[in-house]
Amino acid sequence: MKNKVNIGLIGAGTVGCGVYEVIRRNRKLIREQTGASLSITRIADIAPSRKRPVKIPRSLFTTDFREITGDPEIDIVIELIGGTTVAAEVALAAVRNGKHVVTANKALLAHRGKEIFSAAAKNGVHVGFEASVAGGIPLIRSLKEGLCANKILSVQGIMNGTSNYILHRMSAEGMPFAAALADAKKEGYAEADPSFDINGTDSAHKLLILIALAWGGLFKISEIAVEGISPVTPADISHAGQFGYAIKPLASAKVSGGVVEAGVYPALVGAGSQLAAVDGAFNAVRIEGDAVGPVMFYGMGAGMMPTASAVVSDVVMIARGGGGVAKIAADGGGVKPAPRGSVSSGFYARFEAEDTPGTLGKISTALGKRGISIRSVIQKPGASSKKVPVVIMTRPSPESAMKKAVAEIERHITKTSAVVLRIAED
Amino acid sequence: MKNKVNIGLIGAGTVGCGVYEVIRRNRKLIREQTGASLSITRIADIAPSRKRPVKIPRSLFTTDFREITGDPEIDIVIELIGGTTVAAEVALAAVRNGKHVVTANKALLAHRGKEIFSAAAKNGVHVGFEASVAGGIPLIRSLKEGLCANKILSVQGIMNGTSNYILHRMSAEGMPFAAALADAKKEGYAEADPSFDINGTDSAHKLLILIALAWGGLFKISEIAVEGISPVTPADISHAGQFGYAIKPLASAKVSGGVVEAGVYPALVGAGSQLAAVDGAFNAVRIEGDAVGPVMFYGMGAGMMPTASAVVSDVVMIARGGGGVAKIAADGGGVKPAPRGSVSSGFYARFEAEDTPGTLGKISTALGKRGISIRSVIQKPGASSKKVPVVIMTRPSPESAMKKAVAEIERHITKTSAVVLRIAED
Repeated sequence: MKNKVNIGLIGAGTVGCGVYEVIRRNRKLIREQTGASLSITRIADIAPSRKRPVKIPRSLFTTDFREITGDPEIDIVIELIGGTTVAAEVALAAVRNGKHVVTANKALLAHRGKEIFSAAAKNGVHVGFEASVAGGIPLIRSLKEGLCANKILSVQGIMNGTSNYILHRMSAEGMPFAAALADAKKEGYAEADPSFDINGTDSAHKLLILIALAWGGLFKISEIAVEGISPVTPADISHAGQFGYAIKPLASAKVSGGVVEAGVYPALVGAGSQLAAVDGAFNAVRIEGDAVGPVMFYGMGAGMMPTASAVVSDVVMIARGGGGVAKIAADGGGVKPAPRGSVSSGFYARFEAEDTPGTLGKISTALGKRGISIRSVIQKPGASSKKVPVVIMTRPSPESAMKKAVAEIERHITKTSAVVLRIAED
Repeated sequence: MKNKVNIGLIGAGTVGCGVYEVIRRNRKLIREQTGASLSITRIADIAPSRKRPVKIPRSLFTTDFREITGDPEIDIVIELIGGTTVAAEVALAAVRNGKHVVTANKALLAHRGKEIFSAAAKNGVHVGFEASVAGGIPLIRSLKEGLCANKILSVQGIMNGTSNYILHRMSAEGMPFAAALADAKKEGYAEADPSFDINGTDSAHKLLILIALAWGGLFKISEIAVEGISPVTPADISHAGQFGYAIKPLASAKVSGGVVEAGVYPALVGAGSQLAAVDGAFNAVRIEGDAVGPVMFYGMGAGMMPTASAVVSDVVMIARGGGGVAKIAADGGGVKPAPRGSVSSGFYARFEAEDTPGTLGKISTALGKRGISIRSVIQKPGASSKKVPVVIMTRPSPESAMKKAVAEIERHITKTSAVVLRIAED
């Protein structure tokens, strides 16, 4: 394709404005260094006159995305409207009109990726999605090109800055979840509706994309374990600290014999580990390859300019004629998700129990009956109430056994809900 | 270029064997995932029958590299012999015969990069060098492709695993330098002749390559500050620790107004920082871009399989027809190195002084005369000898002023050599 490209931008929200600004600011540098000459010729947004962080000429705007997807002068369409319905219409219309597409939309790819990539293959165009996982970090390109000589063994990381920021504040200041969330909203680290960030859906979309890239299969979100961070309390963070752990929002996947164990959940990670050191709104992803060993990537996982950096890198690579190797395949890649509940890990469990003799014994017995052995215990006298926390760290055990044992303990022994978290492998 | 490529491997040492093994083991996976079909058809090495960690058919070997660089059937030449003389002959002969070249040789690129890239441009072939900096970490591709939308502001990291391993052992176990070095050799983390690793030359070569990629100018090694780690003692590590710092082997470059401040030296980094957490033989490089902010890359910076992972990634990208954007330009890129001595930083200085009243006062006066102000001091009573350490942390000051002040203190006040280290910016 020619090095001079006309770009249609669909969605001029935060990231869209960042893309406009990066191209405005670094157009000359990009042309000199890569040969790609970038020009945004049209912008579609439902609210052209909304107040924006950067100045964009009103004349570029339209409210109808079809004016972009149908414009024969436009080479590359950048889709930044989010969601999975209109965004899918936009991407498919662009691809069918022979336009390359660049998107930061992880939900779109997780839900409609096969369809979009199959249409792109049919129409001979590229779909760039570097910005869809870990924001500005060049993770997708690294996984599919830099590490292309490797069998990928595992992918693990912190892929949601909002959750990480909230757990970080809770940990640093002993804030309860609700206060930390309110704070994250005030500081601009959480959106007005942060449900997808907090309940693990956003991380799960990203993990599904990484699994598809690493092993070929685009799983459904219902096929992997997805748990949010809201059950975590400052007390859990403090107990975990006493055992030498921090609590982090993890997304994790590993393969063995064609079976992928994957999940998103708040987990205990060693306090001295690199993931424990990832604070605030940062992301970090660790990939293990059979030749390269562990490689870790760290940076801003969201935000106007970091995300725009990734979007524009895709535009440049497409303008230079190479769309990259990263694709979501229509077939299953020969891997399948591990059956739910079959995955083993160590568990942290906090039970709130009556401060009476024998409670710990009963809890241990209930766990032991399911074959779950205890690694360590903290039991301390309660403060004001008669309930005291009994905190248990188990050795690796199947999730299903742990779930059954906890349900039994909740029903028959403590009569209260327990908090159960996974302990991440090193 | 066709997806099926014939590869000639020149140099079957540790990394060469790794390349052979990666291709043997993952050939099918690589073909399925990228379309590139790789075949090593000839290997040149001066010692074909040497004992090797992997089994290679004797029939592949020749002792004459010209049988590879002159073979019309070979598409890509992998140069892994090291050094800058025969390696340059190999690279130039291959390029002039229309063959793409992949190399892990940082010294070669730092010294002869302009010549090799200019010959490659003339002959329309690619030169891949992902493995030349930070081993298996896909750093060069990330810098030039993933971050191509950014003005690069700074590059800083730990780029030599041997130095990092030695300082790590000195720090963890209070070992002196010589013992840690002996240990590194025994463990395979240092070569028989480790001078280039220890005196900073290896890191400097890598930094020169990154500067050339970030800002266009391939400087000479004499144009940047290069200091080795051998002056560092366990006492310095312990003093630095008391001030809240670790000592790490840093390579660092930043640009301002077309002037690049660059250097390689052991430096004090904040004990809680991510660079401080990089232990053993690992590398980590932090790149700051104007859009993406700080991004960090971490992994094995050397070794048979990690380095091979990077070499093979270049081979695959060339086989797919894209050699990548990374190039060392023949022109200066419009940047120049900062004059030596002009760079400011905070300094750590340990003077061994007679335990007499007024010594600290004299040292402070000598520093003050040169405009260097003191941030903190540790002075403790000496143990057996009459000399006591006076350890000073200064505020940022020009290197030249610090050097003059220290020379004066050494000559007229302490009559012994001081240890002076830089304090890294956050």
